[in-house]
Amino acid sequence: MSGGDMAKPLLGHRSVEGDHSVAPTAGRTVGVLGSGDFARSLAIRLVCSGFKVVVGSRNPKRKAGLFPSAAEVTFQAEAVKKTDVIFVAVFREHYSTLCDLADVLAGKILVDVSNNTEINHHKESNAEYLASLFPACTVVKGFNVISAWTLQSGARDGNKQVLICSNNQEAKRIVAEIAQVMGFTPVDMGCMSSACEIENIPLRLLPAWKIPIFLALGLFLFFFTYNLVRQVIHPYIRGQKKFYKIPIEVVNTTLPCVAYIMLSLVYLPGVLAACSQLYYGTKYRRFPDWLDQWLRHRKQIGLLSFFCAALHAVYSLCLPMRRSHRYQLIETAVKQAMEKKTDVWVEEEVWRMEIYISVGIIALGLLSLLAITSLPSIANSLNWREFSFVQSTLGFIALLISTLHTLTYGWSRAFDENQYKFYLPPTYTLTLLVPCTVILARVIFSLPCIQQRLLRIRRGWEKGRYVKFVLPSATGEYSSGETSSNV
Amino acid sequence: MSGGDMAKPLLGHRSVEGDHSVAPTAGRTVGVLGSGDFARSLAIRLVCSGFKVVVGSRNPKRKAGLFPSAAEVTFQAEAVKKTDVIFVAVFREHYSTLCDLADVLAGKILVDVSNNTEINHHKESNAEYLASLFPACTVVKGFNVISAWTLQSGARDGNKQVLICSNNQEAKRIVAEIAQVMGFTPVDMGCMSSACEIENIPLRLLPAWKIPIFLALGLFLFFFTYNLVRQVIHPYIRGQKKFYKIPIEVVNTTLPCVAYIMLSLVYLPGVLAACSQLYYGTKYRRFPDWLDQWLRHRKQIGLLSFFCAALHAVYSLCLPMRRSHRYQLIETAVKQAMEKKTDVWVEEEVWRMEIYISVGIIALGLLSLLAITSLPSIANSLNWREFSFVQSTLGFIALLISTLHTLTYGWSRAFDENQYKFYLPPTYTLTLLVPCTVILARVIFSLPCIQQRLLRIRRGWEKGRYVKFVLPSATGEYSSGETSSNV
Amino acid sequence: MSGGDMAKPLLGHRSVEGDHSVAPTAGRTVGVLGSGDFARSLAIRLVCSGFKVVVGSRNPKRKAGLFPSAAEVTFQAEAVKKTDVIFVAVFREHYSTLCDLADVLAGKILVDVSNNTEINHHKESNAEYLASLFPACTVVKGFNVISAWTLQSGARDGNKQVLICSNNQEAKRIVAEIAQVMGFTPVDMGCMSSACEIENIPLRLLPAWKIPIFLALGLFLFFFTYNLVRQVIHPYIRGQKKFYKIPIEVVNTTLPCVAYIMLSLVYLPGVLAACSQLYYGTKYRRFPDWLDQWLRHRKQIGLLSFFCAALHAVYSLCLPMRRSHRYQLIETAVKQAMEKKTDVWVEEEVWRMEIYISVGIIALGLLSLLAITSLPSIANSLNWREFSFVQSTLGFIALLISTLHTLTYGWSRAFDENQYKFYLPPTYTLTLLVPCTVILARVIFSLPCIQQRLLRIRRGWEKGRYVKFVLPSATGEYSSGETSSNV
Repeated sequence: MSGGDMAKPLLGHRSVEGDHSVAPTAGRTVGVLGSGDFARSLAIRLVCSGFKVVVGSRNPKRKAGLFPSAAEVTFQAEAVKKTDVIFVAVFREHYSTLCDLADVLAGKILVDVSNNTEINHHKESNAEYLASLFPACTVVKGFNVISAWTLQSGARDGNKQVLICSNNQEAKRIVAEIAQVMGFTPVDMGCMSSACEIENIPLRLLPAWKIPIFLALGLFLFFFTYNLVRQVIHPYIRGQKKFYKIPIEVVNTTLPCVAYIMLSLVYLPGVLAACSQLYYGTKYRRFPDWLDQWLRHRKQIGLLSFFCAALHAVYSLCLPMRRSHRYQLIETAVKQAMEKKTDVWVEEEVWRMEIYISVGIIALGLLSLLAITSLPSIANSLNWREFSFVQSTLGFIALLISTLHTLTYGWSRAFDENQYKFYLPPTYTLTLLVPCTVILARVIFSLPCIQQRLLRIRRGWEKGRYVKFVLPSATGEYSSGETSSNV
Repeated sequence: MSGGDMAKPLLGHRSVEGDHSVAPTAGRTVGVLGSGDFARSLAIRLVCSGFKVVVGSRNPKRKAGLFPSAAEVTFQAEAVKKTDVIFVAVFREHYSTLCDLADVLAGKILVDVSNNTEINHHKESNAEYLASLFPACTVVKGFNVISAWTLQSGARDGNKQVLICSNNQEAKRIVAEIAQVMGFTPVDMGCMSSACEIENIPLRLLPAWKIPIFLALGLFLFFFTYNLVRQVIHPYIRGQKKFYKIPIEVVNTTLPCVAYIMLSLVYLPGVLAACSQLYYGTKYRRFPDWLDQWLRHRKQIGLLSFFCAALHAVYSLCLPMRRSHRYQLIETAVKQAMEKKTDVWVEEEVWRMEIYISVGIIALGLLSLLAITSLPSIANSLNWREFSFVQSTLGFIALLISTLHTLTYGWSRAFDENQYKFYLPPTYTLTLLVPCTVILARVIFSLPCIQQRLLRIRRGWEKGRYVKFVLPSATGEYSSGETSSNV
Repeated sequence: MSGGDMAKPLLGHRSVEGDHSVAPTAGRTVGVLGSGDFARSLAIRLVCSGFKVVVGSRNPKRKAGLFPSAAEVTFQAEAVKKTDVIFVAVFREHYSTLCDLADVLAGKILVDVSNNTEINHHKESNAEYLASLFPACTVVKGFNVISAWTLQSGARDGNKQVLICSNNQEAKRIVAEIAQVMGFTPVDMGCMSSACEIENIPLRLLPAWKIPIFLALGLFLFFFTYNLVRQVIHPYIRGQKKFYKIPIEVVNTTLPCVAYIMLSLVYLPGVLAACSQLYYGTKYRRFPDWLDQWLRHRKQIGLLSFFCAALHAVYSLCLPMRRSHRYQLIETAVKQAMEKKTDVWVEEEVWRMEIYISVGIIALGLLSLLAITSLPSIANSLNWREFSFVQSTLGFIALLISTLHTLTYGWSRAFDENQYKFYLPPTYTLTLLVPCTVILARVIFSLPCIQQRLLRIRRGWEKGRYVKFVLPSATGEYSSGETSSNV
């Protein structure tokens, strides 16, 4: 979504100003200053795109080997003289070394492709700094969002957008055309002031994941300590050493809690959104920011939930592998043998476990389907109805089944007071809170009266405004409502 | 493949009619009626693509906030006056509310972007309905296949096709150009009559998956009951209660059967195709529809087979976790102890299990490779030889290994009459039927004589027509033959 | 990346020579000779792209059914007369059958779309062979890299490049324009001599995977035999039959070794690169070819490492399922019972296993994240900093954790001389060598003095050349250095 409201693709400008007036773009000579990875990749791509490339280097002889044979490698001054569009593929701290070229550079277009090492590292953007060094040149910021790798491989799918900004429309147009011939999609980010914004883009580190990850960690810590107290501290005070449980058992009772609550948090915002729509009787009222944020992070929350669920599965499968498990087994066996007790079978225990394992596997299977369909390449091949069916309907079913898993796991423990260590209720009872609220809300929304009102609102109906209204089929419409709130 | 034989991209028309005659597309003013999610996203994308956007709303003041600042939000009549291309982003049931704009709209191009909630919900398509309401306007159907989300994010990869139809070529061309400047690929679907077809596309729900899923469910039900009878009913009649086996053990003996047979069904149609080619001595004879269908659904069948296999793996891994397993272990241990029997080791049993587990894991590993390579983003990065190598060669090896897995699992049980509960043969014997046929057929096809004939046919040779023929290398050619029948 | 330094996209030429001189591309008539899968798909795509298509066949009546209704199917001579661009969709061995068309074909453009069945199957490329048969025609090689499937489905993402070569620029340009209108990206591969190269591309079989796979197999074989000797041969000589261990236990002690060493081999080349950069004090010195190769294969090596790790996990989880495990358990239980020994608990053993299992799971979790982010569709949606964070930082953490896993698994065994069967040290000690070197090197590189020098070099600083140098933040720069060597 780089670009946003401000961005205008330069194709627009181009066809407005007409593209017959300008000199043919491809085949034009382009200069490159610098001989790093980026300069090299840039030269290769430019050559492959039919441009004549002149590379300016301090000692052309030694550097020539690095560049494609088709590119001419010469001294900086030479190179600059031969062209009027020059890519400055040099680190900010070396800009000053170009100052002696100032007069040959005068009047030319300099393309600043540089990146910083930290967000807002310098008070002024590299491009503005370059412009200040060479007032006689027109500086255009661009190509910094493209990696050397993408330049060389010509990224098949994935990001091909080249964000461009400059105070000179004409210069911007020329660079945009070059970008286009190179196979990228130029996007006009306006004037130089947005250079800083553009330079920060490649420094972003998974911004969408920060909140969900902290959320998951928070939940993990809380439930980890809670389980630690119940499973280790409590017995310790009672005089049993159970510390060996920490690495696996405590972790494995914590992970499902996180996974389960995270999953319910994927569907909670949708419920809240529906509530506010019902309350205000319109869909045109903006949601509060926190809710918008939340709605936008559901995918990440869901994926983290799946990740925890998968880990939980692996941990559980490892349980019978452990020495501790083996020893306990043998010990009970030996005890039984000495007491000559042959039947140890507890029908209820057997049933409980068979059921909750089986249900758990099904839940995991569904979650993995959700995870797979959120892969970009697959999500893009689905139409909105398919996507909403998988993400909203199947996802909700997964939530229901995980609830069943939790309940059968808990069985009657909630009512067995021995389970209340230090008066702390069994962990699973805590986790049920949010999911059950979500499920309850969903059930209520599916009541005909509520549902009709809801989907009327989602069809644009507003409280206190009469609209001739044909009731469309519930399901389809509902899911569509879901989608629009799903994306 | 949307489009199909009928579809012509409007680039064609455009360059034919020459694109210099028309007013510059980008920079033109475009109108949007409506203020829903879609209208908003449309406005944002249009602005980003360099269009002047005028939004028509019933009360502009309240709605203005929803739209990008660059877009002008005014009263509907105002907006309509300002432009001659108007996107009608309004639900079908609200079309009638636009009737009072009829005279201002006269002579303008209306773009119907609406979707229905059910396939063939109304007897006439929304676009035709709109046209009937505004006879004085030229209606163009389009953009309905694009979701609000795609509009805003500008889907990087994935579907960028915008299917367009109208009875007016010129109007169609203009809308197509707008779509193109917005970064989409316009596809000409002909005249208004195909509007209905276009409106049904976003309502499709995974059509390719229906048959395979029903197939899988059918197989599951059959084998589930079969195993239920053998593992639960039969002992029950003999007086043992084994109902606890239903949730896990019965399911876990059913899943592998489904997975295994589904896998063989992926390769059966290829065999049948080869047979018909051999029989008719030509490759130019169309296959019967059911076979075509089948060939086209192989990917889905294969993925479902993998899904079942994966579930089978997880279920099996859960077996030793169960209480029942624990109890049985202890009981045997106790019995042994009381009988003072120390050696319980049965060499044959040990070998059987070590082997079939190991083989099973290898089969699963191969299947997961197949599953991964059918991800769109990966499949697209392979050339046909690589794809056919993985899908056809590796896949067939996976089938062989699963057969080995099944056989070693079965071991000598087929010949032990205690296994014939109610005279029903052990389940695994049933499953072997189809796979073995496929393997046998493949072996026969690999006989030099047959193979040569087959690949001659696949090189275009026809029975009763002489062709000077240079025999190409078998292997390469064969796999190429495979591919062409693989895609 | 196909194309390389030589390739120029024909868009270049086109806009240079101006596209107004030529007849409008789309809407022109194009001929197709042949009626195989490819011919059919080609015809369909051409029709969908707005071309008039004439198909030449030996008996048009029978073949007409195979082609879209919009295409005209007639006798070869007829078809050829109607157009001047003819796609020859015929197998090389049938070229001779076209000789009687020689005079009607004279002066026309023949597009050779054929593929071979083996790399360098014939001494001269198909295109050159065709040219030799029809000296009066202009032959253009192209479209052979596109599969019939891609033609029909119009591959959304994935490879859309059409490599074109010919000795005639004009013919090349026309074919390129046709390719473009069909929605492909034409790439100029120069003159006819490169036809052979182009024809070999679709025959490549996962070239990037060969070396890594052989590497993995080699390691597997070595460690397999090593473990075989230690776990099976040695006891056999001592008189115990442990052959049943081969299918699972030996394999399962081998896989982790392979996975672990492969993982370290992903990071070793980066270390070597850094060393050479430090040694020569410049980043402009090309790495030796073997190192370049290695750097380019890291992704594949990493994925194989993950594959082995995953298999190792599954194998380990299967251990408690096995009969042998069950028997051993019962036997020990029985023995204990007879000796009336109730406490079998060995605290140290318990702790060791709980820890190394838990750590192992975490390592696997991290590796799976790495594997997922190397899916094309996901890798493309990351900026270089995110990609390098996951691949370089997380990956290295995964290496650290696997080392921890190995060490806790080994525990004190390295110092227990019973572990030295035939004086062979325990397997895990061998595997530690490479990874520990890598980790050590990384630690050294992170020493301020070394690190600063390293990142100076990566910022273009060269030994013996003074540069005004502003020290940028370590971390950011370092990771960026990593990336550039990561891609």
